[in-house]
Amino acid sequence: KGELDFMRDSNFINKLKLPQDIKGLTLEQKKHLCDEIRSFLIESVGKTGGHLASNLGTVELTVALHSVFSSPHDKIVWDVGHQSYTHKILTGRLDKFNTLRQLDGISGFPKPSESEHDSFISGHSSTSISAAFGLATAMRLQGDDNSVVAVIGDGALTGGLAYEGLNNAGKSDENLIILLNHNDMSISKNVGAFARYLAHIRSKPSYFKTKAVVKKTITKTPIIGKGVNRFIHAAKTGIKEMLYHSNIFESFGFIYLGPIDGHNIAEVIKTLEVAKRLKRPVVVHANTIKGKGLPKAEENPGAYHGLSKCSTDTDVNASIQDNFSNVFGKKLADLADKDDKICAITAAMKYGTGLQFFYCRHKNRFFDVGIAEQHGVTFAAGLSTMGMKPVFAVYSSFLQRSYDQVLHDAAIANTHLVLAVDRAGIVGEDGETHQGLFDVSFLSTMPNVTILSPSTYSELEWCVESSLYDLDGVVALRYPRGKCSSENINICEKGQYYHHDRTSNARILVITYGRIYSNAIAAVKELRSEGVNVDILKLVKIHPIEQEVINIAKGYDGIIFIEEGMGKGSIAEGLGYQLGKELYKIYAITGFVKQSTVEQALEIHGLDKKSIFNNVKTTIKEWDID
Amino acid sequence: KGELDFMRDSNFINKLKLPQDIKGLTLEQKKHLCDEIRSFLIESVGKTGGHLASNLGTVELTVALHSVFSSPHDKIVWDVGHQSYTHKILTGRLDKFNTLRQLDGISGFPKPSESEHDSFISGHSSTSISAAFGLATAMRLQGDDNSVVAVIGDGALTGGLAYEGLNNAGKSDENLIILLNHNDMSISKNVGAFARYLAHIRSKPSYFKTKAVVKKTITKTPIIGKGVNRFIHAAKTGIKEMLYHSNIFESFGFIYLGPIDGHNIAEVIKTLEVAKRLKRPVVVHANTIKGKGLPKAEENPGAYHGLSKCSTDTDVNASIQDNFSNVFGKKLADLADKDDKICAITAAMKYGTGLQFFYCRHKNRFFDVGIAEQHGVTFAAGLSTMGMKPVFAVYSSFLQRSYDQVLHDAAIANTHLVLAVDRAGIVGEDGETHQGLFDVSFLSTMPNVTILSPSTYSELEWCVESSLYDLDGVVALRYPRGKCSSENINICEKGQYYHHDRTSNARILVITYGRIYSNAIAAVKELRSEGVNVDILKLVKIHPIEQEVINIAKGYDGIIFIEEGMGKGSIAEGLGYQLGKELYKIYAITGFVKQSTVEQALEIHGLDKKSIFNNVKTTIKEWDID
Repeated sequence: KGELDFMRDSNFINKLKLPQDIKGLTLEQKKHLCDEIRSFLIESVGKTGGHLASNLGTVELTVALHSVFSSPHDKIVWDVGHQSYTHKILTGRLDKFNTLRQLDGISGFPKPSESEHDSFISGHSSTSISAAFGLATAMRLQGDDNSVVAVIGDGALTGGLAYEGLNNAGKSDENLIILLNHNDMSISKNVGAFARYLAHIRSKPSYFKTKAVVKKTITKTPIIGKGVNRFIHAAKTGIKEMLYHSNIFESFGFIYLGPIDGHNIAEVIKTLEVAKRLKRPVVVHANTIKGKGLPKAEENPGAYHGLSKCSTDTDVNASIQDNFSNVFGKKLADLADKDDKICAITAAMKYGTGLQFFYCRHKNRFFDVGIAEQHGVTFAAGLSTMGMKPVFAVYSSFLQRSYDQVLHDAAIANTHLVLAVDRAGIVGEDGETHQGLFDVSFLSTMPNVTILSPSTYSELEWCVESSLYDLDGVVALRYPRGKCSSENINICEKGQYYHHDRTSNARILVITYGRIYSNAIAAVKELRSEGVNVDILKLVKIHPIEQEVINIAKGYDGIIFIEEGMGKGSIAEGLGYQLGKELYKIYAITGFVKQSTVEQALEIHGLDKKSIFNNVKTTIKEWDID
Repeated sequence: KGELDFMRDSNFINKLKLPQDIKGLTLEQKKHLCDEIRSFLIESVGKTGGHLASNLGTVELTVALHSVFSSPHDKIVWDVGHQSYTHKILTGRLDKFNTLRQLDGISGFPKPSESEHDSFISGHSSTSISAAFGLATAMRLQGDDNSVVAVIGDGALTGGLAYEGLNNAGKSDENLIILLNHNDMSISKNVGAFARYLAHIRSKPSYFKTKAVVKKTITKTPIIGKGVNRFIHAAKTGIKEMLYHSNIFESFGFIYLGPIDGHNIAEVIKTLEVAKRLKRPVVVHANTIKGKGLPKAEENPGAYHGLSKCSTDTDVNASIQDNFSNVFGKKLADLADKDDKICAITAAMKYGTGLQFFYCRHKNRFFDVGIAEQHGVTFAAGLSTMGMKPVFAVYSSFLQRSYDQVLHDAAIANTHLVLAVDRAGIVGEDGETHQGLFDVSFLSTMPNVTILSPSTYSELEWCVESSLYDLDGVVALRYPRGKCSSENINICEKGQYYHHDRTSNARILVITYGRIYSNAIAAVKELRSEGVNVDILKLVKIHPIEQEVINIAKGYDGIIFIEEGMGKGSIAEGLGYQLGKELYKIYAITGFVKQSTVEQALEIHGLDKKSIFNNVKTTIKEWDID
């Protein structure tokens, strides 16, 4: 008791050096530790920025995890990963928290290169079950019987990848625990059937069959009691399957434990102890409160959780300040006032994408599909097939999940739909996993895709309109996170897909597009003021390139491309090869290849022996080189 | 009766001009029609090639669909689409069946451009629910109360996209019917928990609650009986949800009808009639037999369904003939004999990818994850994290599903895993949806990815070894469908990543790789015989390009690239820009961007105003152009 007072006075959070130190604490001390962590998070994240509410919801879960498991021998895989701050604190990174999400500082997401306790990279949603199943399988093959725990939120369970993981893992006998962190956040109208189903389980006072087992075990120490043994026996002999097919996880082959109170450390620890002993696929369902301990959240959970009502104007005014997302969202809502074919789709990012304006005015044509980017695109393609005008607003980085759906379900049939690609370009603090640097390269490879990249609000506004009415096929309209910079000149009018700033007899042309134009034009102006002749061409339509742009570019001796995106697969590469055709030439496939034998297709596309022979010969003649 | 005989004599299949003509047939006539269709399919597909067994399984389902629904007003969305031949026959394409899968002939998959009765493109799996939900939503918004039916197999339900669709649609009130075509094929050891669960439902003698309703309705005509009305009432008032939470589909918010016998036309028709009247999300679960009516399949269903046993050597000998897939599979199995870290993963393509050799010798390290390409990659990344050497063998076209998993879950952390990219390049008869033409462009955009593209069996063999032991990060080893051509010269030895055929003082260089090399070298030889000097460079490692290759290329006046893949994003574009740097230069991002403020990141990557200023200035100086 004297020691307890001593510890209390001297701050546990600073005394713990390694995660296993937690094991030495009493239950009371652990509770106190949770309080300290919560206070620390509120203060520290308040300064640095970052995900606060989601981390406040996982404090007890994390302390319980490190009480029961021994990282890094046991592996904890955090889904999405923005809920792992307590884990970071408890694994030696407390003193680096002031560097959170900063250059050379610690990441806001688990990062194996940062700590051996971060067992898998994460940033995108719904990956944890697949990754953890891989870890568990490898450990079994290597005779390592330590545990693997995937911590996944109910939101992440709406992603197809999570389902693929459940489907594969549930059928296995691997030693894998899925800790379902279930907060109220996803019990909203739109997040889908599974969330509703989970809420149904959540609201049950107890889940009697397994709950009884857990209760029995909680009453005893050590935990290997009669109840657990019987339970394990039933599980192993398959009796459970016949008896317990009463919830989805059990139908999938998991042992289900829950729901438990995720803020009751004792209950979480005891349940995890049971799960650990089972050594087969288990789901532990823990109810938590997002933002737990934050007064603002507890006083007004509805508003805090983003469940505000349109009638109070909260939706419309909450983020009334201009940024690219809101300019887009307002414009789309305005157009939809006059056109009842327009539909808006989001993958759980109503506010982030500025779609709250649309939502408030056109609820019946607004669709939040959950964290399901694949479905978002294919659903949009279905809407379009029946003559609607769907707009799927999605972050560039998350659109990567829809690569095949854009290509296969939309582009091949030249289906008209709009991808409003938000967060295109550098996003900043979220780091590697969230940058929007690939959309141009992967979208420009696909036939029947047009890419617009406005650099100002007014360009964005008319581009929304042109995407819907002037262009066909898949139109990707991309714009960055945040505000338009102050350098806001040479603005293109509607339908003007480039601006050629020809102010001199320059032999050098800078070509650029999007947000970065403001930096480029500033640089060019300064060059000119030093007497260096440089012209600049701003593209709004960056793919396919207009013939006029190619003609302009041909008039220069040197061209400098400036792009906020990957060099490989860039617009520069594509245009560069068209411009440099005296020097080299490509024979490759430029559109979809329709059905035929391989031989026929090769012939059609100039890749059979005869065509190659002729093409090479012709090119050499053209070049007049021998 | 006289008419029936007449009809029987004169062949229904040729008498039906439009799908609605089916509605005029009696039940007996429909049965006879099914027999005719089955005979026709066996004969016709026997000649043209194509998916026979899957189509024999859906004959009655399709006749029933067109008996109950009126295409094109009602929409039928076929998943994967290789089960839609009967649908094609019944919608006016019978006389074109001799052109199936041929140049300018009808497609083996639904194709909206081919017929108004093909309501959505399909070729890749698991898309139908999302697409049909889109159609149904659009129709509701437009006041169109016709029906939408998604026909999906149990195999396709292993894909995450199908789950995302279920999750979204089940929560809705849309007028959507999911017809689950459940054959025995997927009840194999590896296809996952959901398949096992479905099998569990399938094996039930009856599903009493809803079955009773269906039975009641079957006894009456017209179908609006008391039972249905009560059922509809219960469904609409939400009572069902509380009472019927006994299977997954119901948990997801669907009304569940089944399982029914998918070859009993009367039962299918009656059940679809009920589903049609409900006008909300319904799942109709029909049991079918793949290959129904084909004597070979019925005599020996096990072997026919690919469930053969390794002990009989069927697996090893079944496809003993050499092709790229089998050469890969044998080599990998050989390496795994000596290295117990090697794991093999397939997404339901054990035979197609040549992995049967591995499976027979290393079952414990072989993983069939179902049609779940996303999970396949993330699971592999998990295995790799624990020191295993995972090899995921997957068709190029299906790897498109894993774009984000390769990039986010593997490449960012430089995780070592091998993607054995089969069917890379033109695949032939399957057409647009199955070509492997995008893998080079999308994989080469990602940092930490190496791409190998051997052109011969022996190169493929050592590439398998090098992928596992000599290279790091994500290694994509790509090779085409089918056999190696006879032009098998200038073979690279292990570790020799290119072959430079320098036989003259040519100023022109042809650069190529993969299968197409054989055509290119033949063309070059013929050119030389005519006195045209051309050198040729074959690449085995196509990305990143070796510095030596760049140096070689710089020694020529003109370069001709020949690639069996998309021009945009090609290796040619990437190398071309490196070679053409006297003419143009790119400033863009070349690697992952780590966390920082936007401003810091722009500075680090040379995209802030100051850097642009300096870079432009420097480049101009280098070029000596003013």
